[in-house]
Amino acid sequence: MKQIKEYIEANKDRFLDELFQLIRIPSISAESEHKPDMIRCAEKWRELILAAGADKCEVMSTTGNPVVYAEKIVDPSKPTVLVYGHYDVMPVEPLELWNTNPFEPVIKDDIIWARGADDDKGQSFMHAKAFEFMVKTNQLPCNVKFMLEGEEEIGSGALYGFCEEHKELLKSDIILVSDTGMIAQDIPSITSGLRGLCYWDVEVTGANHDLHSGIYGGAVANPINILCKMIADLHDADNHITIPGFYDDVLVISDQERALMAQAPFDEEAYKKELDIKTVHGEKGYTTKERTGIRPCLDVCGIWGGHTGEGSKTVLPSKAYAKISTRLVANQDYQKISQLFKDYFEAAAPDCVTVKVTPSHGGAAYVSPLEMPAYQAAEKAMTTTFGKRPVPTRSGGSIPIVAGFEKILGTKSILMGFGLGSDAIHAPNENYPLFNFFKGIETIPYFYENYVELMKK
Amino acid sequence: MKQIKEYIEANKDRFLDELFQLIRIPSISAESEHKPDMIRCAEKWRELILAAGADKCEVMSTTGNPVVYAEKIVDPSKPTVLVYGHYDVMPVEPLELWNTNPFEPVIKDDIIWARGADDDKGQSFMHAKAFEFMVKTNQLPCNVKFMLEGEEEIGSGALYGFCEEHKELLKSDIILVSDTGMIAQDIPSITSGLRGLCYWDVEVTGANHDLHSGIYGGAVANPINILCKMIADLHDADNHITIPGFYDDVLVISDQERALMAQAPFDEEAYKKELDIKTVHGEKGYTTKERTGIRPCLDVCGIWGGHTGEGSKTVLPSKAYAKISTRLVANQDYQKISQLFKDYFEAAAPDCVTVKVTPSHGGAAYVSPLEMPAYQAAEKAMTTTFGKRPVPTRSGGSIPIVAGFEKILGTKSILMGFGLGSDAIHAPNENYPLFNFFKGIETIPYFYENYVELMKK
Repeated sequence: MKQIKEYIEANKDRFLDELFQLIRIPSISAESEHKPDMIRCAEKWRELILAAGADKCEVMSTTGNPVVYAEKIVDPSKPTVLVYGHYDVMPVEPLELWNTNPFEPVIKDDIIWARGADDDKGQSFMHAKAFEFMVKTNQLPCNVKFMLEGEEEIGSGALYGFCEEHKELLKSDIILVSDTGMIAQDIPSITSGLRGLCYWDVEVTGANHDLHSGIYGGAVANPINILCKMIADLHDADNHITIPGFYDDVLVISDQERALMAQAPFDEEAYKKELDIKTVHGEKGYTTKERTGIRPCLDVCGIWGGHTGEGSKTVLPSKAYAKISTRLVANQDYQKISQLFKDYFEAAAPDCVTVKVTPSHGGAAYVSPLEMPAYQAAEKAMTTTFGKRPVPTRSGGSIPIVAGFEKILGTKSILMGFGLGSDAIHAPNENYPLFNFFKGIETIPYFYENYVELMKK
Repeated sequence: MKQIKEYIEANKDRFLDELFQLIRIPSISAESEHKPDMIRCAEKWRELILAAGADKCEVMSTTGNPVVYAEKIVDPSKPTVLVYGHYDVMPVEPLELWNTNPFEPVIKDDIIWARGADDDKGQSFMHAKAFEFMVKTNQLPCNVKFMLEGEEEIGSGALYGFCEEHKELLKSDIILVSDTGMIAQDIPSITSGLRGLCYWDVEVTGANHDLHSGIYGGAVANPINILCKMIADLHDADNHITIPGFYDDVLVISDQERALMAQAPFDEEAYKKELDIKTVHGEKGYTTKERTGIRPCLDVCGIWGGHTGEGSKTVLPSKAYAKISTRLVANQDYQKISQLFKDYFEAAAPDCVTVKVTPSHGGAAYVSPLEMPAYQAAEKAMTTTFGKRPVPTRSGGSIPIVAGFEKILGTKSILMGFGLGSDAIHAPNENYPLFNFFKGIETIPYFYENYVELMKK
């Protein structure tokens, strides 16, 4: 790949300017008021990917937000890489914790600060610019397809049906995804596994209206107190999840494999310092990396009920709510777990309240074998640009659709992500270092070159 | 008391019109944006009480919201009744559960629907109109003072200092309060005891920023999960509060007294039906009336953290919050309990989080002896107007300042309230039946007559 560094150097301001056009569109898929922004963002992608050199690009309708599909077919007999990314972003509240406007990107300390700077506008746009480089310098060694969806942050609901419907169009040899992270700027890594996900909305109802906490307190169940107890009961003293059957399908990892995993560099003191916590906290018998890599977990992602404003209202509320999610590991069936939790939690409700569990979204875990050509192509590409062989890691995060791709399209994915743990994705002050953004653009063309080479064998 | 019924009949529309002028002012003391409304409401009271016949009325400044003070001194040698009430109201959220605008009163099914219709604009205004009747018909048998505060719903913070400062001005023989309820329209009752109150704001902090629940979930403490566990641990399986020392000062009620209390009419089936609950829920070994009357309790009045909006954000939040309150019974020292909880709850925090407890407000419990002349005067007045002897009851609610009056001014209070359990005070769709409003106005003059008579002996 000749002149990639020079190309980046010559075009870097334009690259950032284009990325910022994408970032400025507040494409928050979780909030229905942003529906028009989803369309605007998809149209902006179309404009940018056509300018980058795609033969054609369409904003295709789905049962939800549209999918941006683009392609450049150089030779049908050559391999095809399908680049997957998403143009939707997470909500931004609590807004008061942001140092800058989340949708007005700023560069400070050589870092881009904005919602979507990493996840996934920054990362997916690297592919557009790497593609542009290969097209403009006549070095594109294979066919490329792009598929950018607008619902990743809310479970990719519509994309499953879209894939079913467009199997032929989406046919490829490998799906290339940059929506994960690496260990550090000087420790490249490739995500070889992802956790699955289940998410539920929980509603606990006590009396039919809010009550005066003095007149009724002590005699009528408080749905907040009850919900807290029910949530507390989901873990035992060793932080094992107590839902019967929850661990049944979890693959037991051999001591040998755990020993191998333990060799990946990880500085727990630095980890604690970065998060400003005194101790880590998780399932007894496992290390921090194991807890996020090979073990499932259960977290309350949101809770609310009663008086949450200023002052001290003495109320015994009628309702309390929680958003509960679990991360799953390979071999756990998310649909089975979804039902398991619903049945268990509703049945666990004491007589004094009613509990309603609504499954929200979910997805299976995914494992990418280190032997496949795409893994080796990515490994070699990163070795070239980082000067160091990347480490395989298991991410605690989930990209449920990746397991969906394998099931529906029959195609494996390679997760070559360039994010950092400090990028604060899903949180206030999301950011993405310029180093990572440009290093990603530099690395991607080598992946294509290596991949096409390996596929010839 | 001649012609009280006729006077009410002739003036009822005006009485309601004047009350509605008070209600229309959104005097929510818990929300700082309503500061100007507090002043407006105090001024409106001044206008109305002067028109009702007070010799003088002043809106007096305090360290917080102003106090409306009025008086009519007919003869310094006669007894003096100090009427206490409050012109502030509770917040109104969740607004979507109201059937009407909370600050635009409507009469439907012979009931006034509005925030403050009962608590305490409706109830305190009955005193203004009963006073007007006695003045205009030359039947006022003693001196009357009015004191209306604007911070009852947030703990009467400024009123303690106000009482200290104006002991002489506030001198009286009895403090007359209508800020409580009675059992039913055909079962009059007088509140002979009130619970005390402690209220705390709790903040649990995990990592220094919101985290991606996939990448960190299972390895870093989730402050919501931890808070839920800590709240759950505040009660044991019998619903006893587990804070060491919490019950130390609670007076043990004799079996004989419990048997007497049990004679007060109470229909638990109707209670459950009204609240639409399958079972009551409280401390083992006590009845529903005992649980709210003679036993302390602990409730979470509010909880929040993480993603509480639409959709399914997968976040491991940095912070979780709760507003926790306890109701206390006679002999429990609220300042001692306040410190006890703070020390206990902060110490109970596991190493993986930090917990901060901020005491908000509190007040002591109060008991009014059935032997005192004011109780007997109230009992006789209600017997006259309801045709039935009222039952003494212990309310689960708190009016902390009532214990404060006794301590600072050395004056007992009589709690002759006309509210109903169905009035939804502190909740959406607060209401006050016209029957209760007018019956209150009818009853109050008899209290004065009986009280002056009994004080002569």
